Amino acid sequence: MSDPFDLASYRGQCRVVIDKLLPSIDGGAFPVKRVEGETFKVEAHIFADGHDTVVPVLQYRKKGAAQWSEIPFTELPNDEWEAAFTPSSIGFWEYRAFAWIGHFRFWFEAFGKKLKEGQKMSVELKIGSHLAAEAAERAAGVDAQRLAAISAELADESIDEAWRCTIAQSAELFELATRHPDRAKASVSPTMTLLVERERALFGSWYEFFPRSWGKTPGVHGTLREAIAHLDGVKEMGFSIVYLPPVSPIGVTFRKGRNNVLSAAPDDPGSPWAIGSSEGGHKSVNPALGTLEDFRAFVEKTNALGMEIALDIAFQCSPDHPYVREHPQWFNWRPDGSIQYAENPPKKYQDIVPFNFECDDWKNLWQELKSVFEFWYAQGVHIFRVDNPHTKSFEFWRWCLASFKEAHPDAIFLAEAFTRPKKMYRLAKGCFTQSYSYFAWRNGRDELREYVEELTKTEVAEFFWPNFWPNTPDILHEYLVTGRRNGSIARMVLAGTLSSNWGIYGPAFELCDCEQFPGKEEYNHNEKYEIKKWDWDKPGNLKKLIGRFNWIRNTNKALQRTRNVIFANTDNPSLIAYVKKTPDNSNIVIVVVNLDPQWPQSGWIELPLWQMGIGDSESFTVRDLFSQDQPDGKTESYVWTGRRNFVSLRPGNKQAHIFVVER
Amino acid sequence: MSDPFDLASYRGQCRVVIDKLLPSIDGGAFPVKRVEGETFKVEAHIFADGHDTVVPVLQYRKKGAAQWSEIPFTELPNDEWEAAFTPSSIGFWEYRAFAWIGHFRFWFEAFGKKLKEGQKMSVELKIGSHLAAEAAERAAGVDAQRLAAISAELADESIDEAWRCTIAQSAELFELATRHPDRAKASVSPTMTLLVERERALFGSWYEFFPRSWGKTPGVHGTLREAIAHLDGVKEMGFSIVYLPPVSPIGVTFRKGRNNVLSAAPDDPGSPWAIGSSEGGHKSVNPALGTLEDFRAFVEKTNALGMEIALDIAFQCSPDHPYVREHPQWFNWRPDGSIQYAENPPKKYQDIVPFNFECDDWKNLWQELKSVFEFWYAQGVHIFRVDNPHTKSFEFWRWCLASFKEAHPDAIFLAEAFTRPKKMYRLAKGCFTQSYSYFAWRNGRDELREYVEELTKTEVAEFFWPNFWPNTPDILHEYLVTGRRNGSIARMVLAGTLSSNWGIYGPAFELCDCEQFPGKEEYNHNEKYEIKKWDWDKPGNLKKLIGRFNWIRNTNKALQRTRNVIFANTDNPSLIAYVKKTPDNSNIVIVVVNLDPQWPQSGWIELPLWQMGIGDSESFTVRDLFSQDQPDGKTESYVWTGRRNFVSLRPGNKQAHIFVVER
Repeated sequence: MSDPFDLASYRGQCRVVIDKLLPSIDGGAFPVKRVEGETFKVEAHIFADGHDTVVPVLQYRKKGAAQWSEIPFTELPNDEWEAAFTPSSIGFWEYRAFAWIGHFRFWFEAFGKKLKEGQKMSVELKIGSHLAAEAAERAAGVDAQRLAAISAELADESIDEAWRCTIAQSAELFELATRHPDRAKASVSPTMTLLVERERALFGSWYEFFPRSWGKTPGVHGTLREAIAHLDGVKEMGFSIVYLPPVSPIGVTFRKGRNNVLSAAPDDPGSPWAIGSSEGGHKSVNPALGTLEDFRAFVEKTNALGMEIALDIAFQCSPDHPYVREHPQWFNWRPDGSIQYAENPPKKYQDIVPFNFECDDWKNLWQELKSVFEFWYAQGVHIFRVDNPHTKSFEFWRWCLASFKEAHPDAIFLAEAFTRPKKMYRLAKGCFTQSYSYFAWRNGRDELREYVEELTKTEVAEFFWPNFWPNTPDILHEYLVTGRRNGSIARMVLAGTLSSNWGIYGPAFELCDCEQFPGKEEYNHNEKYEIKKWDWDKPGNLKKLIGRFNWIRNTNKALQRTRNVIFANTDNPSLIAYVKKTPDNSNIVIVVVNLDPQWPQSGWIELPLWQMGIGDSESFTVRDLFSQDQPDGKTESYVWTGRRNFVSLRPGNKQAHIFVVER
Repeated sequence: MSDPFDLASYRGQCRVVIDKLLPSIDGGAFPVKRVEGETFKVEAHIFADGHDTVVPVLQYRKKGAAQWSEIPFTELPNDEWEAAFTPSSIGFWEYRAFAWIGHFRFWFEAFGKKLKEGQKMSVELKIGSHLAAEAAERAAGVDAQRLAAISAELADESIDEAWRCTIAQSAELFELATRHPDRAKASVSPTMTLLVERERALFGSWYEFFPRSWGKTPGVHGTLREAIAHLDGVKEMGFSIVYLPPVSPIGVTFRKGRNNVLSAAPDDPGSPWAIGSSEGGHKSVNPALGTLEDFRAFVEKTNALGMEIALDIAFQCSPDHPYVREHPQWFNWRPDGSIQYAENPPKKYQDIVPFNFECDDWKNLWQELKSVFEFWYAQGVHIFRVDNPHTKSFEFWRWCLASFKEAHPDAIFLAEAFTRPKKMYRLAKGCFTQSYSYFAWRNGRDELREYVEELTKTEVAEFFWPNFWPNTPDILHEYLVTGRRNGSIARMVLAGTLSSNWGIYGPAFELCDCEQFPGKEEYNHNEKYEIKKWDWDKPGNLKKLIGRFNWIRNTNKALQRTRNVIFANTDNPSLIAYVKKTPDNSNIVIVVVNLDPQWPQSGWIELPLWQMGIGDSESFTVRDLFSQDQPDGKTESYVWTGRRNFVSLRPGNKQAHIFVVER
């Protein structure tokens, strides 16, 4: 933009003002996000002084393309304009508004009004002739010839004036002249960026597990080859993404023992997040899990089942990591010659060494870290779960993810950003595809609604896509501890219907493992530090129910988006209700969850029928896809009428309804 | 900001993120506005990765100054920071956030925690010694010497460790080291602009009149010398600004006659807005009004009375304007050799010729137009009312007003921007001090509240200062026509208490001239086209009441700001109520207006006592400064208790209360 004080910096003849272009994040500093196939609607505030005609177009192109595509903006009231396009491929796109004064259009319209009023038209015809001649100069070929001919006719006083007026108002002249407008004095907005992600970025069901607990012999460190056997069961539960903790070698120095004690026993496997040993670093496979070939076999089997691997990338080192020896300049060193471990004073984390992002060799550090993603991408991993990104430089992420996704637009990055909101959102702006969220700590009706509306109804929705997890290896919330099986069902339904991306840490989740470490919101005997023996067929497990739930998600488009949620009022605070629907109302899902895992709850819900294409006194059938209570194994249905309808949910029997509207 | 894809464009070692700096308009493209003496509070969203200490400062300077002043930000929850300063003079200021990682501070705090925990401190002391030595290198003189000495002490193992720990935690070391922080890797926000205006820009009472109607002989064109006699009466009504329509020569070609008819009678004076004739252009005085000396005398007399002149500047020409002859390149010409007049097809305005802001000679045009302001500024006019700015290039205004105010920061510009909201707001962003508003068309309680809240409680308040006018020579709203005297009183109170800037077109207003031109929202026998004979002492005139009203405004600080309005709920939609107060509650005004000019209205108002520093069950006295009903001429007062209080207002007797709270 021009320096307001400096005349020399102005393009003074450009009279059109492009005041705003929306959506855009921080004036275009960060990309807006959409998913493939979605229509991208742009709104602009555009006007000029006086009564002249403004002609604005939306220009867009794939980043790097030489030519802009162009579509006209449609005028809305109050100097607002809109235009929409559907990007034809995933990756980065650019868009901007471009607008000029349409002198020909203004003349053309004014001519019509004046003609109707019976004003003298001779001078108007001459002006039209000039305008057509100017357009002819900008045109070429046939267009130029026709414009020149019309220009001559309009000015030819030997031709009947009424006939010339007809030519002046002809569709042919309008078409030709507006096809070759004078853009020399056009205004242009800043260029904004749009990031188009693939479908899986917005719709995925994640299942996290530790392969080492799935060896042939329970309690003995398993290999990737052995854990392959677990994948069929994950597929049966309907998951689309298999998420693995880091698979790299684990450090020995200061290794943590079971339940996070400071000294490990000789056979303790260590935390997979303490990365690097004499056996290799971020680009190696822990020999206890197998080889790189084994890893690839695991990936291939996952893909063959129609699922994808998400790999955990944690940019931190154990003190034994080869980087420490090979690139000491990337770390902080203490005056006694020891390496600076992670700390949050007075707490010390001596098994973890952070990178020094302020080091002079930052460019090589950044490039090496990015090459870790490149390495695993080459092994078939196109989805990454990034550990603690908020403890690494924000600017590093911005560069790393933008440039990585420029080369590999199908890559998906989930930020484990359990941090304060502004940091969380900044990481999302800086091209993380998805982020963990505060979902685990939002359990009441009103706090759930408030949070989800912040994520879906504010500017945040343009760049932040949440992933809702009822549990993780780090988080076992009190609600699950006290709610046990019923609580787990409630949280599953909430996670996977409020957010189109959801995930669980299994099998702790489906087995309803609810034992907290005393005084902590964490699992006791945490799998991070030990090999677990899981009885996957334990009575009461949720495997079948999860399978049913993911099947509902996989077969209802309305549940494959997050922003499309509309909350419904309930008169009982233990009941939460909301509608999710496709834009064309062809799939409408109504979810009602009893948030109370102990007691039956009933009440009235008030549906936003006017947003669902249903009349206020209309009847419609709702079928509960989550129920299989009938003797024939079919689902229950009800006929509802109008906005207010009654529901009753009994824990143990039915914790939630997931209705689809049938009409 | 760096190109996200290009590593070379990054300052990669700068880890602090400055995500937002507020207030700021469109990312700093336009200035935020404040008035002299006001404290300017800045909020920033600043954070860094990890747990390190962030040290942000607010830097500010007068535009053009070489050095930044600097104050620390104070931390609020959730990565928000605030800082405030009071600009020492009017004009343009610059501000930005500047922030770095405070390694010394982090070490200092961590040292304290570790010491308390009984950890080993020997390495920590060495780190402290290094940090002090580094600070010594950045310091000079005594500071450098002391830091070097402390550095040596901390590392000197011959000194008792407990004593060295005491030194490490000493206030002296903290003071010295934080005075010389390492800013090499500091992040810096974009530079924002603040425009500080003089007090009169935000608080003024405008009186518009046509001097030519105030000659010695009623009905005969008066001169400026003659009209001087009118000024005492204006002063008595308590006005601070005397606003004159254009005083330049008026065109003859296509001059409009009485009531805007197309052909003028020989003695019709013409509209002052059809500027320019053989007698001169924008920098000349209409000889019928007098000379430039007469004009200066008029200005001097106005100033001597403690008022200021506002002059109307209309950037358009009559066809007779010298510019048309001298600078034909600034206009559009038609193929028949005639000049292009203004039109809004099919309407023609042949008495008015617009400038062509797209002309190739735009730089000279811009400079000439700016020189018109310079010319009148030199005659003592520091306040300008700008006619129809939205029909001239927005970019022209942006440059003209910014550069003019840079040279003359006391200049005030009122935009006559009766146009759509986005254009109105854009002009305000482009340095117009004030703007006319939609006030004339907001007459109901809820629409008044909604509009005023848009102007005072949204981002608009940062750059748009309204001026509320019950009438203008162009606008006579139906409310005044039907409401007559009582309606005029209601509109006066609303205008001058909702907005700290208000004005009237007199004497039409104080004489309650309510005769509309048939079918138009305009005065009949409009003074724009004829010399009027006014009987200024007509019975029922509002002169004394206006005087009282402006006295209340002039003596109550709470009414001298616009943004400080707080609406109070009323149970009767014909009653509007609001509170205006100084930040310290030393002056609290409660306004209640009966919006019905015909019928008595009464009801309950609910005061926001919690924002007024009054307890919910407290009693307080409200004195109605607008009443003089008592036999002794004193004002009425009431003792009120609590939030809900009853009011009753009878048109003809009392249209409004303007209470001041006495405690």
